[in-house]
Amino acid sequence: MKTIDVCLSPDLMHLYKVEDRTVVVVDILRATSCMVTAFAHGVESITPFANLDMCREMRGQGYITSGERDGKMVAGFDKGNSPFEYMGDQVRGMRIAFTTTNGTQAIEKSKGAKEVIIGSFLNLSAVAKHLLFSDNNILIVCAGWKGKVNLEDTLFAGAVVEKLKDYIQPDCDAPLAAQHLYNLAKSDMVKFMSNSSHVKRLNRLNVIKDIEFCLTPDQYKVLPKLNGHVLTL
Amino acid sequence: MKTIDVCLSPDLMHLYKVEDRTVVVVDILRATSCMVTAFAHGVESITPFANLDMCREMRGQGYITSGERDGKMVAGFDKGNSPFEYMGDQVRGMRIAFTTTNGTQAIEKSKGAKEVIIGSFLNLSAVAKHLLFSDNNILIVCAGWKGKVNLEDTLFAGAVVEKLKDYIQPDCDAPLAAQHLYNLAKSDMVKFMSNSSHVKRLNRLNVIKDIEFCLTPDQYKVLPKLNGHVLTL
Repeated sequence: MKTIDVCLSPDLMHLYKVEDRTVVVVDILRATSCMVTAFAHGVESITPFANLDMCREMRGQGYITSGERDGKMVAGFDKGNSPFEYMGDQVRGMRIAFTTTNGTQAIEKSKGAKEVIIGSFLNLSAVAKHLLFSDNNILIVCAGWKGKVNLEDTLFAGAVVEKLKDYIQPDCDAPLAAQHLYNLAKSDMVKFMSNSSHVKRLNRLNVIKDIEFCLTPDQYKVLPKLNGHVLTL
Repeated sequence: MKTIDVCLSPDLMHLYKVEDRTVVVVDILRATSCMVTAFAHGVESITPFANLDMCREMRGQGYITSGERDGKMVAGFDKGNSPFEYMGDQVRGMRIAFTTTNGTQAIEKSKGAKEVIIGSFLNLSAVAKHLLFSDNNILIVCAGWKGKVNLEDTLFAGAVVEKLKDYIQPDCDAPLAAQHLYNLAKSDMVKFMSNSSHVKRLNRLNVIKDIEFCLTPDQYKVLPKLNGHVLTL
């Protein structure tokens, strides 16, 4: 039976071998939710950057610059980190250079994997189906918050473990913990998340609409994949 | 209000400042459960060693050598890592040099803290009372398994958060996740733990009696503390 494991923080990536695994990178609030939304609306490519200045330099080279630091839009960038900025006809065909506090760092640390895909609640079933029909073992990498474990990414990991439980076996305790938390939260994830640190942080920034959207399963069927340094469909 | 945080793995210790905190080190299966049992039965001191050879050298110097690697007793050591080896009159007054796969490593990483105490379900209420009446903020350090997050230490952290919830505020998402898991597990922790990785590992070693005992709250009232390099009451 294939196995699934969950890395609850990018700072624990050294514990996992990824060369033979499919890695799912998840940063629910909000990097990977934005990426999935963008591809669902016809964006051509997203190039993730861990480094802010390297991302900024792409602006003169035909790229839209996007992202945030500490939850806020970066001065001089074209777009921030709300999924609602990545909807509608105007994003079609865009090439985006993207940097965020946590999500793009987690992608950077996953680059040695056999395959890297982008997960969010918005494309949950697309992710689960892909994992089910792939031959690879699985590692879900939670972006967390500056190395610390967060609830929303853990819940997503638990949702994937739960969906695949009859076919793919948890490797260790982290997937079991995530699965328990997801089953506890799933009937009302917004309520469950209301005391979480990142929701409190984002509430101060007035993005409750973003939070509700990012916790909604299966809005899109797209499955962004990393090819070299670039995400495409 | 004082705050409580939970470090789910020793490999995340770099994210936490501990100089002004009371750190509770926990390794339920089985290092800190053994230590608490030993002190409850009159052991004089326990000197934790991260390094196996340094621990072994203490044998000629009036110390009992104790511990395990990968769940198994170390060849040439006096005692292993079952709490039942640390009961009865014969342990009274002993000085023990102790090394384990995870627990003593977590103690080593906690040494910069304002105060380091030893937690287990066996002395849960003693730990909670001490934390309540101390002025320090709190960090619970879960020993985990070779850097990976485990369920049993997370459940203990959640039990402490739950007990103190009216008086001490969670600092981040890890204490909230631990608290949810504990509340889910508390009515039958042995059953909840039956699928965990470490219980499976230990079941192969025939230590189900140890597991049941280590998950039993409030058998003892002792509170081992680190003084320099030595644990005493």
